[in-house]
Formats: sequence, C-alpha cells, structure tokens
Amino acid sequence: MIDCGEGVQLQLRNMKLKFSRLNRVFISHLHGDHCFGLIGMISTLAMLGRKGDLFIHAHPDAEKVFTPLLDYFCHELPYKVVFVPIKHGNGEVIYEDKALKVSTIPLKHGIPSYGFLFQEKPREAHLKNDMIKFWNIPIRDLKSIKEGNDWINPDGKVIENKTLTTPSTPARSYAYCSDTAYSEKIIPYIKGVDLLYHEATFAKDAAKRAKETMHTTAGQAATIALKAQVKKLMIGHFSARYEDDNLLLNEALETFQNTIKANEGLVYDL
Amino acid sequence: MIDCGEGVQLQLRNMKLKFSRLNRVFISHLHGDHCFGLIGMISTLAMLGRKGDLFIHAHPDAEKVFTPLLDYFCHELPYKVVFVPIKHGNGEVIYEDKALKVSTIPLKHGIPSYGFLFQEKPREAHLKNDMIKFWNIPIRDLKSIKEGNDWINPDGKVIENKTLTTPSTPARSYAYCSDTAYSEKIIPYIKGVDLLYHEATFAKDAAKRAKETMHTTAGQAATIALKAQVKKLMIGHFSARYEDDNLLLNEALETFQNTIKANEGLVYDL
Repeated sequence: MIDCGEGVQLQLRNMKLKFSRLNRVFISHLHGDHCFGLIGMISTLAMLGRKGDLFIHAHPDAEKVFTPLLDYFCHELPYKVVFVPIKHGNGEVIYEDKALKVSTIPLKHGIPSYGFLFQEKPREAHLKNDMIKFWNIPIRDLKSIKEGNDWINPDGKVIENKTLTTPSTPARSYAYCSDTAYSEKIIPYIKGVDLLYHEATFAKDAAKRAKETMHTTAGQAATIALKAQVKKLMIGHFSARYEDDNLLLNEALETFQNTIKANEGLVYDL
Repeated sequence: MIDCGEGVQLQLRNMKLKFSRLNRVFISHLHGDHCFGLIGMISTLAMLGRKGDLFIHAHPDAEKVFTPLLDYFCHELPYKVVFVPIKHGNGEVIYEDKALKVSTIPLKHGIPSYGFLFQEKPREAHLKNDMIKFWNIPIRDLKSIKEGNDWINPDGKVIENKTLTTPSTPARSYAYCSDTAYSEKIIPYIKGVDLLYHEATFAKDAAKRAKETMHTTAGQAATIALKAQVKKLMIGHFSARYEDDNLLLNEALETFQNTIKANEGLVYDL
C-alpha cells in the first residue's frame, strides 16, 4: 500500500481487497492526508486476528508520532508493527525480494517527501515444453536454459536457446510521485517506467499557487512524463476547486498523449 | 457532533453538512472507532480557514493523546482546539446554553464511557399577534405574556394568557448510549426521552459474546427502552457479522414497538 489516508479501510472494503494480503505500507510523507488512516487500519487488522508483522516504511518521525497512539489505543496487538525509517529520497533501496525492488525518488514538498519506484525483477524465460520433450532434456538442465543458455545434447549438437524458450514477460515498473513541486530532479529515477503516477493538484491558471504550496500543475506533470519518456502517465491528487477534473486531464493531454486520470477505485493493469 | 470515527469528513461531505457549523464534539469513549476521525477533521477545519474555538468534550486522556498529534501535524492552526475533560458519567452537566443542556449518562464498557443526554430548554409560548393588536398591548408587556402570565388592561380587565398565546413547542430530549453493556443504571437518566439511541451490537444468539465484550443485544436495548418509557428507540452499532440488520431490528421490535434502525446517513426529525 502506498500512503494511508483517512478512509482507507472503507476503500479496502469497497474494493473487496483482502486486509490480510497487506504486508507493507509505504508512506510518502507525514501530512495527514497521507497517513491518518494508519492507526485505524492497524486496529482493524488486530481485530481481524492478524499475526504477521506489518512494515511501515516512512520518515523516521513516524515511529515517534505513532508509537504513543499504538500504546494507548492498540496495547494488545496480536502482531508487530515495524517502522522502517526511510533515510533519503535519492534512490535508497528500501525493500527487495526475489521478485521486486522498491526504491525512493526525491520529491520537493516542504517537509521530507519521497516518491517510490517499484521495479519488477527480470523474470525467467518460459520453456517450450514440446521442444524440451523432443530433445529429451533432463530436468537438471532446465534451470540453465531458463536463464538464457543454449543446450548441448549428448552428441555435442548445440540447441539454441531461442528454439527452447519463449521470452519472459518484460519486467514492469511503476513510479509514484506525490506530493511534489515540479522537479526535474526526479527524471533520472523514473526514466522509461511503464507507469508514472504524478500528482497534478492544479491547472495552469493556478501555477503560482502550485509553486507556493509545492504542488504541480497538470501541464507540468505531463512535461515530466515527456522528458522522462515514461510509457503512461496517471495524474491525481486534484484540488477540490476543480469541479470537473477533465480540465486537468485535458491540460496534461496537450503535452503528453498517454495520460489517464487516477479516479477513485480505478484498477489499472500493467 | 457525537463521536468522531474515521471517515467522518467523507460523511459530512456526503450529507452536505457545513463543517463551519460544528462547534462541539462529544466523545463517548477513547476507542478508535469513536475518535480516530478527530485529527483529520481538525486539520481540514484549519484548511477551511476556521477561526472560532472547537471544543472537544472527552475523557481527560484525550488531551494527552491528541495534543502531540496536533503539535506535529497541525502546528499552525488558525483556531484553538479546547479539550474539555469529562469528570464522570453520573449526570454531569458538560454543556449548557440558553437553549440546550448536555449531561452525561453512565455507560459500562471496560474503559470509561459516557452516554450523552441532550435536553432542550422549555421554550416561550407563541404570541397570537391578532390578539396583541386587538388589545393594543404595549411591547414592554410582551415578555411577561410569553412567560405565561395573564395581562391586565388599563381598565383593570384581566385577559387570560391562553387567549393571548399558543403553547410553545414541547422541549425535546435525545439520549445517546454507545458503547455499553446492558445496564439498568442508565434508566433514571434517560426516562421518557423523545429519542433514545442505544447500541445493539449483537442479536440474542450472541448474548454471551455481548456480555464478554461489554456490548448489548437488540433485545436488551429494547428492554431498556421499555423500562425507561422512552418515546422512540433507535438502534445501531451493528456487528459486521449480521449481513441483514433487520434481524436485529426484528429482535428489538418484539419487546419495543417504536424502534428504528440507525442506518448510515439517516436524518431523523424530532
């Protein structure tokens, strides 16, 4: 989960997502609309009988701020809440497993704020089962083939890897950047990602207000997407002043064609 | 506002209620589902430019628990949050103005918990304007007539009050009792109220669970309503285990006919 605003539990229920599948929360910054849902969610997970640790990746202050609340309201938690402090936003790897790497992106927002880059690790090629059977390849050699190597049969004949495998699904990447002022510093971190979520709080008519409050206009978000050559841009975090958020979408589309709006409840398949 | 759970802001918006009209919040007890919405709402009121004090009536711990959060997240509030500690649940008058009195009701729920009794003060009678004109009564005498006195005209003729006024609307009363185990101790406090909100977390099949967790069954809530001779009972705080809350309503109706369910978004006119 990325950020955890008030009402997150309601949203999880509406979306029919399983609370039990949640293991890590990445908090971009300690403004209320990005973290006030934590304490309620932690309580509810306890009521649901959670046992496994829950990891909260956030600015070091998070532990200081939320621990007294946990002590008061959740003093008999059946699981552990582990705060993992984020040290800096310059590409720090804050989580890694065999399938995924998560690292930080430097945002610019008055208080320490981090974007997150989720990178899937390259996956192994798929074996062509009919060819494996045809050449009668022993199981012990399959790992090497999956890793891209050719296979040499007992007679010394080289069977090319491409005849034995189909390429793996390309590894996917997703970058989340909110809240932030327009900042080209993030470009090297998000270069070419499959999907960039970037805030677009204001339209260009409020460019001055955007700068003052350290937010981005829709046009600026699109400029970032263009310069970073991302595949798709998703904009969100729209100010309540815009009754019709298509105004913001249209502004972004002028600069970057492949833009969509992050409407509430949207599920986007990469 | 009585209690302030997570998601309260969303609900205020959905119901199109004005945030600016809110001046006092009465917190029944410091369990998360009754107070985790406070900090977000306090932040939002600041963003909306509130100036007037906001009073939070709650257990004395509330100030201790929420002040560090306010210091961290809302350090430049344009208005004052005043925590007013509740001393006890035995009918303490915690708020009073010329139209309304609010006092506490002793609940039974593991941690200190208070119900709230809202009593409207008796209102003045309405003047019959045609009669006032007919008798040519001077303005200086109207106050006394509104208070129920007869009027004596310059010739010494007594004009009875009932010919000069129509009775005022009867003063209304509302009692809120949640969360609580079944407790007949509350009966003297809620005797004859126009509307009693009483929790009914469980049905009778879970009477044991209700007792353990210090909650009430729907049948028990109805028994309280009957014994206290209230005019109407509203039940709520239903456990998520009941897919159809009509089960709880029907259980209450067996004992107390004038029962309704406190469905989300319900507006009930007294």
